[in-house]
Amino acid sequence: MAGLDEVITNLVGVFLKYAGDDGGKKPKIKQDDVKGMLEQEILSPELKAVIDADEIEEATKVMDKNDDGEVNFHEYCRCVTKLAKTYYINKTGRGDKKGKKKEQK
Amino acid sequence: MAGLDEVITNLVGVFLKYAGDDGGKKPKIKQDDVKGMLEQEILSPELKAVIDADEIEEATKVMDKNDDGEVNFHEYCRCVTKLAKTYYINKTGRGDKKGKKKEQK
Repeated sequence: MAGLDEVITNLVGVFLKYAGDDGGKKPKIKQDDVKGMLEQEILSPELKAVIDADEIEEATKVMDKNDDGEVNFHEYCRCVTKLAKTYYINKTGRGDKKGKKKEQK
Repeated sequence: MAGLDEVITNLVGVFLKYAGDDGGKKPKIKQDDVKGMLEQEILSPELKAVIDADEIEEATKVMDKNDDGEVNFHEYCRCVTKLAKTYYINKTGRGDKKGKKKEQK
């Protein structure tokens, strides 16, 4: 299992992989590209069984918090945290009322 | 570079490695153990040059948001996101007013 430093460097690395760099402006991911990114990045069977199309759809919707059609690094991290919580609740069977444990398909 | 699914599974894995499992209750990391965890987990020279003792101190302080002396998964993710933003700002040289680029020592 990788350590927290790999989690941090890869979290940033994946964002920069998808965020365009239009000279000088802050790197952002286009809202339309978000769903494709999540589908391309979430490949492991273990995670796909928990983070399904509905979860990706929901995460995509909440990502662009300021509704500017683009996703900045902070919004991206909120989405990854949301997906990680889904996986965490499923793995530990513990979550708040909202978090329901998903039967492994 | 690992994909987002590894980031998510490792983010959860590192938390569960440090969070005690006192039978049935939600896994939490004791506030006193947080600093030690961050020091043990952030080893890569690249990251240590950016996330120094001050950053770890600051992250440790904000982690226990509800001040119950313990850190739950959501508080832990907020802290990792904060550290990732420090690394992101340093790597891209871009951040909001608060984020200042750290000279590599």
